[in-house]
Amino acid sequence: MRGLMMEGPLTLSAILRRAATVFPRRDVVTLGYGPPRRAGYAEVAATARRLSAGLGRLGIQPGDRVASLCMNHDRHMAAYFGVPAAGAIMHTLNPRLHADDLAAIVRSAGDRAVIVDEALLPVLDAIRERVDPGVAIVAADGPAPQGMLGFDDLLDDDPGEDALADPDELDAAFLCYTSGTTGAPKGVLYSHRALVIHALVCVHGDAFDVREADTVLPVVPMFHVMAWGLPFACAMSGARMVLPGPAVDPASVLAAVAEERVTITAGVPTVWLGVLAALDVDPGAHDVSSLKWLIIGGSAAPRVLMEGLERRHGIPCMCAWGMTETTPLGTAARLPPDMAAAPEDDQLTLRQSQGRPVPFVETRARGERGMIPHDGRTMGELEVRGPFVASGYFGREGPTEQITDDGWFRTGDIVTIDEREVVRITDREKDLVKSGGEWISSVALENALMGHPDVAEAAVIAIPDERWMERPLAVVVVRDGAAPTPEELIDHLRPSFTPWSLPDAVEFVDALPRTATGKFKKAELRERFGGPRPG
Amino acid sequence: MRGLMMEGPLTLSAILRRAATVFPRRDVVTLGYGPPRRAGYAEVAATARRLSAGLGRLGIQPGDRVASLCMNHDRHMAAYFGVPAAGAIMHTLNPRLHADDLAAIVRSAGDRAVIVDEALLPVLDAIRERVDPGVAIVAADGPAPQGMLGFDDLLDDDPGEDALADPDELDAAFLCYTSGTTGAPKGVLYSHRALVIHALVCVHGDAFDVREADTVLPVVPMFHVMAWGLPFACAMSGARMVLPGPAVDPASVLAAVAEERVTITAGVPTVWLGVLAALDVDPGAHDVSSLKWLIIGGSAAPRVLMEGLERRHGIPCMCAWGMTETTPLGTAARLPPDMAAAPEDDQLTLRQSQGRPVPFVETRARGERGMIPHDGRTMGELEVRGPFVASGYFGREGPTEQITDDGWFRTGDIVTIDEREVVRITDREKDLVKSGGEWISSVALENALMGHPDVAEAAVIAIPDERWMERPLAVVVVRDGAAPTPEELIDHLRPSFTPWSLPDAVEFVDALPRTATGKFKKAELRERFGGPRPG
Repeated sequence: MRGLMMEGPLTLSAILRRAATVFPRRDVVTLGYGPPRRAGYAEVAATARRLSAGLGRLGIQPGDRVASLCMNHDRHMAAYFGVPAAGAIMHTLNPRLHADDLAAIVRSAGDRAVIVDEALLPVLDAIRERVDPGVAIVAADGPAPQGMLGFDDLLDDDPGEDALADPDELDAAFLCYTSGTTGAPKGVLYSHRALVIHALVCVHGDAFDVREADTVLPVVPMFHVMAWGLPFACAMSGARMVLPGPAVDPASVLAAVAEERVTITAGVPTVWLGVLAALDVDPGAHDVSSLKWLIIGGSAAPRVLMEGLERRHGIPCMCAWGMTETTPLGTAARLPPDMAAAPEDDQLTLRQSQGRPVPFVETRARGERGMIPHDGRTMGELEVRGPFVASGYFGREGPTEQITDDGWFRTGDIVTIDEREVVRITDREKDLVKSGGEWISSVALENALMGHPDVAEAAVIAIPDERWMERPLAVVVVRDGAAPTPEELIDHLRPSFTPWSLPDAVEFVDALPRTATGKFKKAELRERFGGPRPG
Repeated sequence: MRGLMMEGPLTLSAILRRAATVFPRRDVVTLGYGPPRRAGYAEVAATARRLSAGLGRLGIQPGDRVASLCMNHDRHMAAYFGVPAAGAIMHTLNPRLHADDLAAIVRSAGDRAVIVDEALLPVLDAIRERVDPGVAIVAADGPAPQGMLGFDDLLDDDPGEDALADPDELDAAFLCYTSGTTGAPKGVLYSHRALVIHALVCVHGDAFDVREADTVLPVVPMFHVMAWGLPFACAMSGARMVLPGPAVDPASVLAAVAEERVTITAGVPTVWLGVLAALDVDPGAHDVSSLKWLIIGGSAAPRVLMEGLERRHGIPCMCAWGMTETTPLGTAARLPPDMAAAPEDDQLTLRQSQGRPVPFVETRARGERGMIPHDGRTMGELEVRGPFVASGYFGREGPTEQITDDGWFRTGDIVTIDEREVVRITDREKDLVKSGGEWISSVALENALMGHPDVAEAAVIAIPDERWMERPLAVVVVRDGAAPTPEELIDHLRPSFTPWSLPDAVEFVDALPRTATGKFKKAELRERFGGPRPG
């Protein structure tokens, strides 16, 4: 028997309509382009409505893809809602990718228009040499270059509240491609419903805890999985937003926190390592007292990072895990109440993990002998399912190998799960070292190496080995002025690792190659160092 | 174009499965039946699974209604999940209703079984004299009376995790009848989806703010609109629950708060008036320091109640509004951040209102000339819509007069809405005094009268008037030992009201008649005092 409740729209339009009505003057602040620009949610909604109507006049049809090549700013925020309100699909492009990859993604998406920052026009030019991304709409104050449209020129009179219409909640609203270091790019196609349920889960007190009284600074770019859902979480809660534009260097981030009294900020570990270094240079010079949480995601947080931010600078940190295919929040590492009295080191170990699944995300892990026991030791590939987990990829018909027969998504992350359901990533499947039938975690070795005072960065890769099939190799960037020997570094690891899981060798390099999202390019390291070595 | 995300179940089963897995030992405590009983969510889930299987063996089919005549306790909590997991519909009956009303409700619902507390067997007997409510299942420790089943006897071996199956999320999970002082009882039929979205909205930091670290004491009965969704909010968040059983007198409530370190509690104003009186008798005798919020709902909170709890006893209060047809949370009265520096009295005035709509609930109000302006003065009937608002009533085919042509629910509450979207109930439509074309708020008069030191309770009703059509009459219960004159009470009102809105007369009574949910029975007062008076 069906319930008798309204169908009620779980749409992005419903979020913004309410923000415009209930929080009309709570502002979205844009930094990095001269003096701060401030627009209340009522103004953001008006811009979204006007953009939606303008896209219609341009000939954009329901289901069309509209790309963005933009940093975090007010026009991007308006497009986040205005493009889906037009029934179209907002497709965020990562300007840090190589032009060949961008062109492949634009080709796969079949974009019909692209909203582009003035500073990113060279990236667009490089794309256009390879593929036609449709009409270019320049998000800038001045006149648009010849052959392009100005974002503001597209805006006509406010078409009124009906322009923030509710599409069917199962319709696609966003498209984001995985950074995909391997294989062809894969597009994740998010429905309104998935984004809304994700936003409701994000704002929970044990997840990001976003409330009306908060001021949120997403350092994470809006082209990385919708800035982890923060734009929707903020509009839903009426929280102020501070959008840093291109100004995401440590000094600018710290200035934004101090000047706008930011309470929540979010970004990847590499950003926070820079911020920590800036804080350490001149402790007390930056006012970070307004911060309630600093969210670390995108990759595992080094322990030294959390210890530094929390103990030396009093900034509470919160780690979360997710991926493009999980919208992205999958797990969050809040301390369980029964650990409130545990030793601080045990607390930190837990809080530095990937954490426990958020509501409506289910987790399990598959080892070589079926689902692993939740003992905190056995490793397996993490599988997830839930209402904001991808069921397939854009433009790829039929079943995908990343979905199991019983409908779970295979993450490719190798994890342990403990009796508290705490997930710990030990490796990406493709980075795992499989030595003599045993799995060695490259992440654990990297974290331990980065704990050595002479080490700036470290990556551990698997290299072929005649006897053991694979063995770990450490690739290390040393700190300025330091000159550790390989033996010293390996000795540093001995207390924490079994002898067979220690790296066989250490290579020193000037810098580690990184992907566009800041992760180590292990494939490149394997190519460089991966030749067979003496067994 | 459809999104490519998993369909993912928004079901009560999904909430409890996660609670059992992630929060297995967070406990649900039952008081009031001897020593406290404690069961972790893993045990609650096992009981729910066993009950679900047991109902199947009894012949309960998907869509069947299973009633409960129960206070707040562990078995009722297990039934909250176990009955819907069986595909059946959990139908909570209010044991405080008259047997004639209960029989009419059972007849309308077509219940096939009823779970009943031992202490409420006389209520069941009275129902059975009028209608057959199906198999009686007695929720008690001892053997069941002849012809009835014991709750525990229904539980066989644990059928395993699959027994917490996911029904279609649009299927009905719960049925609750409005207390309906007028007309035939009306049943609201909640889908899994509506209950889940409501729970996600409830746990938000600006609503009930339920987290894993919380301990929640629902004094509001589980037969009142699912205890305002708290059982689902707690299981979703992993919060501890304290279920008071029959022990909801002030002393028992205060003891539960102190002994279980309750952080959030919720109930109607009459409960809290009793608790405030008990606190005032012996200030400092009760440890209420663990309380983070005390939620007041069900009817408007008198200002003296909030002032007393907050100023004299340091208990932060939070008002919320809703109704059976809104699952029930519709608005919550958190202070907007821009009022953080406002005078305390202004803050209290706002926090004592119904507040602003929660996410995905839309509000508007219809006056005699169309939708009212949001000016905080013009009165109109509140209309709402959203994914957890009723679209009709159980067993009533076709359109209902309570749904507007464009699909909004007419609440029957007369409100103002201000420029901040703050809703203030001025009256129930049927209680509004319409005097000479102007509306007079009986609620405002009642609150002001109850602020007089000699007044214990006051109700204001409309009585027929030849000249003005209707005029207000005050019906007052005085405090022990006090003997105010009608003139003194009306003089007390003069500073705050226009002369024409003052009551024409004051009647003194020993007690005010109340409905089963604690509201004044104004219909009875109108019958007693409503004869025409000299114009």
